[in-house]
Amino acid sequence: MNDETLTRTTLLGASSDAATRVFTTILTRSPISRTDVSRLTGLSQAAVTKAVTPLVAAGLVNDSLDPTPTGLPGRPVSPVAVVPDAVVALGVKVNVDELVGVATDLTTRIITSDRLPLLSHDPVAVADAIVAMCDRLQEGLGGLEARLACIGVSVSGDVDSDTGMVRDSALMGWRGVDLGALLRERLGVTIVVENDVRALTIGEHWFGVGLGTGSFAIVTIGRGIGSGLHLNGEVVEGAYGVAGEIGHLPLTSRDRLCACGRRGCVEAVAATDAIVAAVSAAHGRAVPIGEAVDLARAGDSAAAGAFAEAGTVIGAAIASVVNMIGPELVIIGGEGVANFDLFEGPLRRSYAEHVFGSADRCRIVVRPHTFEDWARGAAASAIRSLVV
Amino acid sequence: MNDETLTRTTLLGASSDAATRVFTTILTRSPISRTDVSRLTGLSQAAVTKAVTPLVAAGLVNDSLDPTPTGLPGRPVSPVAVVPDAVVALGVKVNVDELVGVATDLTTRIITSDRLPLLSHDPVAVADAIVAMCDRLQEGLGGLEARLACIGVSVSGDVDSDTGMVRDSALMGWRGVDLGALLRERLGVTIVVENDVRALTIGEHWFGVGLGTGSFAIVTIGRGIGSGLHLNGEVVEGAYGVAGEIGHLPLTSRDRLCACGRRGCVEAVAATDAIVAAVSAAHGRAVPIGEAVDLARAGDSAAAGAFAEAGTVIGAAIASVVNMIGPELVIIGGEGVANFDLFEGPLRRSYAEHVFGSADRCRIVVRPHTFEDWARGAAASAIRSLVV
Repeated sequence: MNDETLTRTTLLGASSDAATRVFTTILTRSPISRTDVSRLTGLSQAAVTKAVTPLVAAGLVNDSLDPTPTGLPGRPVSPVAVVPDAVVALGVKVNVDELVGVATDLTTRIITSDRLPLLSHDPVAVADAIVAMCDRLQEGLGGLEARLACIGVSVSGDVDSDTGMVRDSALMGWRGVDLGALLRERLGVTIVVENDVRALTIGEHWFGVGLGTGSFAIVTIGRGIGSGLHLNGEVVEGAYGVAGEIGHLPLTSRDRLCACGRRGCVEAVAATDAIVAAVSAAHGRAVPIGEAVDLARAGDSAAAGAFAEAGTVIGAAIASVVNMIGPELVIIGGEGVANFDLFEGPLRRSYAEHVFGSADRCRIVVRPHTFEDWARGAAASAIRSLVV
Repeated sequence: MNDETLTRTTLLGASSDAATRVFTTILTRSPISRTDVSRLTGLSQAAVTKAVTPLVAAGLVNDSLDPTPTGLPGRPVSPVAVVPDAVVALGVKVNVDELVGVATDLTTRIITSDRLPLLSHDPVAVADAIVAMCDRLQEGLGGLEARLACIGVSVSGDVDSDTGMVRDSALMGWRGVDLGALLRERLGVTIVVENDVRALTIGEHWFGVGLGTGSFAIVTIGRGIGSGLHLNGEVVEGAYGVAGEIGHLPLTSRDRLCACGRRGCVEAVAATDAIVAAVSAAHGRAVPIGEAVDLARAGDSAAAGAFAEAGTVIGAAIASVVNMIGPELVIIGGEGVANFDLFEGPLRRSYAEHVFGSADRCRIVVRPHTFEDWARGAAASAIRSLVV
């Protein structure tokens, strides 16, 4: 990490609430006039100008763009814009069997991406693999290496993003793994470890379908069932690092035992492993998920029934999110959306049955996120840590 | 409404985001130094001074208090403080069988209170009764009548607080009742109609146990099971006016039919009417709630079992709130807390079973709100509308 980057990071780290809001607004809506920044942040024009000056000096924002004719009498409007190449971020998504990494610019545009199989869940081995991934990504930066400012790593489970401690990740079999500390001693830049769904939510808020939406939830289906919530301009972090844990709402029968040890959880019926277990039990042999999907599409009643039961519980979980926080938009994502046809009917019926009052005006969209999108969310959470 | 009040309302209504934050901070933490206002709002000292000046001119804030010695060298600190008597608000809580009303000052301190039986749920009759209640409260103001600036009315159900439309209130049997319009043509001041639990949440945030808490939830038990959520400094309103509807999370068996028409709702087991129905069915006669409580305390297994089942479902509902939004604090309130001993054991066991990861560090307190507290919340929501 060079001095230039250090100065930037420090500058933003020490910035005021007003400076943060100004920078976030420019970051997500460039190019934008100072007048519009003032309107969107609720700050005076003078306060906006005061916040913009050091951002320009640090090379993060450009104020020398051509004036935009407004069509109205008076001075033309001089927009300001983020300088995308000013900072490079890396984002790494830790999956159960591989790492997916991206290098992005300040607007999370992907510069390069890579994948690396994960051969062990031993925390030190995973940290080694993340370091190797970061080295490979940096090799693909083509001259921008010196601008690397931050690295975000996203992991499923209960993650304390303030410290980088993974308190509990059933998927990785981790309890109290200080991944942040393991990485910080090896990598010389700002490290952020974040819950994977929350990282995806930060990415969607800044640069995805969540942009401009007052409140939204991302619900992910697949190996785990999770959600990320965005309300009043903020990701819901949870006072103790836990929020959006819809996979463990007790929405199904007590005789369904969850991998977490609890009874009646959504994941006990709707997670990929639960669907695989149900189809395997019905057929008296181990049926992998790909075959379970094929069987369900071919009309096998046990397989179709397992997906339908999962869809019913997921629909109730989405209705629970909507009844509780009343978002404008729910984005259904996660690897399970590749088979969304198998969930959809029962999911929508169950959602319609349980959603309350005018909360049903919430828009629901399905978005097939790639693993690169998840890694991009990890990069977004690292960039966010520089400015918030 | 006199000119003096009109000027104040207009002033606050047209105020900037910065002015609102400054006033809210002074309102909830008087007396407070400008330095502390600056620190808590993230605004510059200059911006704080700019926001305070018109508040002083309008008589809402006093800056002529004695300087507080700081014990440090330099100028003593001159605090600013809200002028409680500058504005009077009325708050009316609509219960199923009576109105409870309070008149409060700007800090929601109760000046006078009153009750009025509600003989009909006909919307015009209820509006008549609210107007009569407001007249009676104004008679008790002892010379402050001219300072009446706003009236808040709180009702159970799906309420659009922007317009005052009660979209759906099962308790009142209302659908699409424009209570705001019915009242606005009769009462000459700002009228706010708000969901009752959300109004209580606003009151707790500003002046109750929620003050200084980053995030909290109020869960109410009794006739209905509801919740009010407070996150990142804001009450969660719901994009379409619905939020915190934990009474209709499908946390119990599908064979339990709820008064709302849905199956498996929390209220289908845990609402007062559901408990009464279960105890009555077991005893083969109509058992009122007071007798059900007595029977349960005397060890009647049907009655004790009905409360235990309700406690189990309420515990799961609280765990669902905590898993989803991760608050620092849950306040259990509502008229049901008068019999909290009958719910408590199963409630706490069920909560502990379903709460996820470090979210279990959330503090849970039981607070017996009086109906005056609920009416005070209605007044708080009206005052909030003047400044937000």
